[in-house]
Amino acid sequence: MASNIYTIIMAGGIGSRFWPQSRVAKPKQFIDILGTGSSLMQMTWERAARFSTDDQIMVLTNNQYKDLVAAHLPAIQPQNILTEPARNNTGPCIAYAAFRLYQQDPEAVMIILPSDHLILKEEGYTEKIRTAVDFVRNHDALVTLGIQPTRPDTGYGYIQFGADGPGRSSGNEKVLPVISFKEKPDLATAQAYLTSKAYLWNAGIFIWKTKDVIKGFKNYAPALYDLFLEGMPYYNTPEETAFIETNYGRSPHISIDYALMEKADNVFTVPADIGWSDLGTWASLWDVKEKDDKQNVLIQKENIHLSNTENCIISRDGQKLTVVDGLKDYIIVDQEDVLLIYPKGKEQEIKQVIKNLEQDDANRYL
Amino acid sequence: MASNIYTIIMAGGIGSRFWPQSRVAKPKQFIDILGTGSSLMQMTWERAARFSTDDQIMVLTNNQYKDLVAAHLPAIQPQNILTEPARNNTGPCIAYAAFRLYQQDPEAVMIILPSDHLILKEEGYTEKIRTAVDFVRNHDALVTLGIQPTRPDTGYGYIQFGADGPGRSSGNEKVLPVISFKEKPDLATAQAYLTSKAYLWNAGIFIWKTKDVIKGFKNYAPALYDLFLEGMPYYNTPEETAFIETNYGRSPHISIDYALMEKADNVFTVPADIGWSDLGTWASLWDVKEKDDKQNVLIQKENIHLSNTENCIISRDGQKLTVVDGLKDYIIVDQEDVLLIYPKGKEQEIKQVIKNLEQDDANRYL
Repeated sequence: MASNIYTIIMAGGIGSRFWPQSRVAKPKQFIDILGTGSSLMQMTWERAARFSTDDQIMVLTNNQYKDLVAAHLPAIQPQNILTEPARNNTGPCIAYAAFRLYQQDPEAVMIILPSDHLILKEEGYTEKIRTAVDFVRNHDALVTLGIQPTRPDTGYGYIQFGADGPGRSSGNEKVLPVISFKEKPDLATAQAYLTSKAYLWNAGIFIWKTKDVIKGFKNYAPALYDLFLEGMPYYNTPEETAFIETNYGRSPHISIDYALMEKADNVFTVPADIGWSDLGTWASLWDVKEKDDKQNVLIQKENIHLSNTENCIISRDGQKLTVVDGLKDYIIVDQEDVLLIYPKGKEQEIKQVIKNLEQDDANRYL
Repeated sequence: MASNIYTIIMAGGIGSRFWPQSRVAKPKQFIDILGTGSSLMQMTWERAARFSTDDQIMVLTNNQYKDLVAAHLPAIQPQNILTEPARNNTGPCIAYAAFRLYQQDPEAVMIILPSDHLILKEEGYTEKIRTAVDFVRNHDALVTLGIQPTRPDTGYGYIQFGADGPGRSSGNEKVLPVISFKEKPDLATAQAYLTSKAYLWNAGIFIWKTKDVIKGFKNYAPALYDLFLEGMPYYNTPEETAFIETNYGRSPHISIDYALMEKADNVFTVPADIGWSDLGTWASLWDVKEKDDKQNVLIQKENIHLSNTENCIISRDGQKLTVVDGLKDYIIVDQEDVLLIYPKGKEQEIKQVIKNLEQDDANRYL
């Protein structure tokens, strides 16, 4: 695609719901969680490379993961690994990337991708991103990809879209105006959203011109705007790191949705049926992976012997012989230092298990 | 006790029903399967040392385990580790030990102990063995310890005993004549045995004078008698090993019960309530071990977090954090190269799992 499209990969998360495979020291995005031979981060890079050249792909991550990013992405330029000194959610993170990129190229188009999601339909995905890029080139618009819901999921935020708007009036009916963002709903509400066909899942994939998002920060998130504007003399200079180290921690702790998307009046969505999963939980991984004839998902297939076992997901460090009989709807994760055998339906309780450990132990296994 | 009491520890078994903790390369008797800090072999040695001096304790094992025996028993004399070149069951093994011991001390009393059993009531055990030793000193008798049944177990052979006999007539009512040996019964028969109070479990613990058992072989097992009599010039000389290596494989493959005990007319038993288990299976280990308030047996207690989990037995290589929810009546064995999650009630199927592996794999994990 055209030369001023930059992709920002957000890679600061710790993937705690994927414990014990995902750990603070090596979170989900750095793991070959699908058993394909590539980490989620590497798969995200491959997707970014469809839109941006290697030098136009940036990764925003935590200081702690800088070396992991470099190890997983041999083609990344060292100066394109940006580190957040603090975990202040997506608002400050995206504001930093936007101002820095604006300093470099005021006409830049930005694509923002989470580093730890799954996209099964790569062609559809590419087409939808291109649609969004074409749209934002010609409009002062903030676009979020909207995922076609396939079930009444209560774990995602929803996007309510309208049938008309500049997208349609411009002849581009693939881009629709956003009426409102909805917090994670209860099951009845989620079911109503699904039935109405007027709602999409909010996947945290954004497309806009850099100057448009900066205008958005100015109008709706002045604290972020003021803070990162201060850095303009330093971005892309040797003083950038010192500025960020000194000032980033002063930013409010706020999501991009709350800081900007829910307030702005120029938000659009591109509905996308792209086989997306945020892989937020073991059950969501089970949902998207190939299953055996008993509906078991085996992340590594070798050396697993199951009998009377159904609807389970099994993931191991290595090739250990694994013999299981009689389990239904279980998560089995066998790591060098942790063995987890837990009902799939109760996986939200796994976090609590860690909290219940003595503090020293909890830190050891996080 | 007196100086001519020799203890022979039988340690050639491979403990296959305790897989995957017990392996061919390191069977059950060499494992701290109870989590006490001692292997079953070491605990058996401690019991043998109540009757015999260190130089009077011998271990009969497979060639393959010679080094393991030496490592587990620092006090054993090297010439007292006797190796069988072939696994031909207990008949030849005991005949070899008897002839060799007869060459050394024709008046010797022999105690034969399996190396991989559990005895919880050590004092009662010592008393019963002493009763048997006192009895065989004064009688040409083959004595087997008879375990008081506590349940209608279908996994053991049974001993039918009579109320009268030389034991009683000699004033020693603790020694009773054996009427017959019974193969492993079905459940109804086992229940009838239990109710009748006229049956005991056959534990494979034998006491006799060496010369009496040799006479028994002469009368009832002439093939064993002839074979091991041939070796008389070589036992306890540098030529013993060559004789055994050359000839042992010619012996019939036969148990001591079938070769001798079921045929002889001078067999007695000492009923013993000694907290015995052959630890033949994971369920039998569960039976005898201390349980938590949900009836779980944790072989190592550290770092295990259970919820909604009952009647399970959990054994691990190390101190790995183990998190389990919702399992009832399961065996969980986590080894470096094998993870087993299997219903306790189906453990007899575990052997089949190994057989179902491809041959190369089966050999790797046996």
